[in-house]
Amino acid sequence: MANNNLIYVKAFSLKDSKDVDLIKDDINKGMILIIRITPLAQKNIDELRSVVDQLYDFISSIEGDIARLGEERIVVTPPSVKIWKNGNRLQ
Amino acid sequence: MANNNLIYVKAFSLKDSKDVDLIKDDINKGMILIIRITPLAQKNIDELRSVVDQLYDFISSIEGDIARLGEERIVVTPPSVKIWKNGNRLQ
Repeated sequence: MANNNLIYVKAFSLKDSKDVDLIKDDINKGMILIIRITPLAQKNIDELRSVVDQLYDFISSIEGDIARLGEERIVVTPPSVKIWKNGNRLQ
Repeated sequence: MANNNLIYVKAFSLKDSKDVDLIKDDINKGMILIIRITPLAQKNIDELRSVVDQLYDFISSIEGDIARLGEERIVVTPPSVKIWKNGNRLQ
């Protein structure tokens, strides 16, 4: 039961390149995603690179924001949310 | 230069129990914080417990949200933002 006045933060584990559509759907709904990329990184690094490239293109097109979070995660946001960066990378 | 129409996600490393006031200030400004607790955990686990207890009380009082994110981080949100949970814990 989602409340339209609220923004949601959702954590998500990326296991398959097909998950990119789920991510785009959630961002289009205005959600903030914290995506653990390690499962796909361990399975297929080329697939991970492709997903990350697709996400950068998508986020750029909608004017959202994207950043690494440590070694295992990326943060992706819709246009209404920006990531506060020191340099180009989160801690 | 903060834009008041935007919500910010900020990553933060907790190094000292005094940092709890900085966290509260950012939450009161409407920011979402992803806090890496490892630096304080390695320094003083009792201090970390005290900070986490203070954050739970604060977040409860303002009707924000708080959740663990993996082993190293917690996510803390202002009242306008909720954390999408599977069970009680993020992935």
